[in-house]
Amino acid sequence: MEIKLKPIGYVHRESKEEDIRNRSLISKIVIRRELVKALEGIEGFSHIYIIFFMHKVAEEEKRTLKAHPRGRTDLPLLGILTPRNSLRPNPIGLTLVELLERRNNVLFVRGLDAFDGTPVLDVKGADSWDMAANARVPEWRKKLEEEKLSQ
Amino acid sequence: MEIKLKPIGYVHRESKEEDIRNRSLISKIVIRRELVKALEGIEGFSHIYIIFFMHKVAEEEKRTLKAHPRGRTDLPLLGILTPRNSLRPNPIGLTLVELLERRNNVLFVRGLDAFDGTPVLDVKGADSWDMAANARVPEWRKKLEEEKLSQ
Repeated sequence: MEIKLKPIGYVHRESKEEDIRNRSLISKIVIRRELVKALEGIEGFSHIYIIFFMHKVAEEEKRTLKAHPRGRTDLPLLGILTPRNSLRPNPIGLTLVELLERRNNVLFVRGLDAFDGTPVLDVKGADSWDMAANARVPEWRKKLEEEKLSQ
Repeated sequence: MEIKLKPIGYVHRESKEEDIRNRSLISKIVIRRELVKALEGIEGFSHIYIIFFMHKVAEEEKRTLKAHPRGRTDLPLLGILTPRNSLRPNPIGLTLVELLERRNNVLFVRGLDAFDGTPVLDVKGADSWDMAANARVPEWRKKLEEEKLSQ
């Protein structure tokens, strides 16, 4: 079975060299003009999910089955579906971002970790459907989060 | 541009008649056998995101641009990217579920609102990356949540 999708829009960043891991940066998502009506009301959400296609992942990378999170050998070797990296059978990215503003077919968002030119597959308002109080995460993930907090 | 994806597995439910909106029910996600190593370590997460393809949506429905949430005319008419329904240009579903157990290539999850036979595109551990404290949602969405709580 093969599933065919067409991007609803693309990510536009200030520059191609921006650090996409810096979640304070603002990106634009330019939705196809003919879909502008499909965005009506989305500005009622303060946070939205962006589902995007990590188009820079090479074909051979998609065949890897195990990897260290972020390539760090001090963290465990895991199945590639487990960490949130781009090495996965379908290189789909998912990020929760802050929706700052909508101007017609353009969404201004803060915190998107996608490169300039990334095809966007879907956008969804974030609500209680997506919130898990007290979610448990693995030790390696706690370590990464603690490092980030201490930066 | 056309993006081609292949399911990593499929949803298996107890019966085809189950109420998929009942989030206390348990489903199985049967991942392709050759990907079993890619799942190693995912059981460290208590909650995971399931990204799936809503394969029952008809082609003509994908061309709708505005709709009432859940077809309810007492709720506002919105762009179809705004509520979390299946009417969207790319019928991709996203649900946060509780991961109860992994047995080899099978994930047992609670709370998945996908029909039996639904193709799964990706699974991702849920962590602080996805959590927004005090996210604001629109009035119509609050109303739906309040109704659910009072049931």
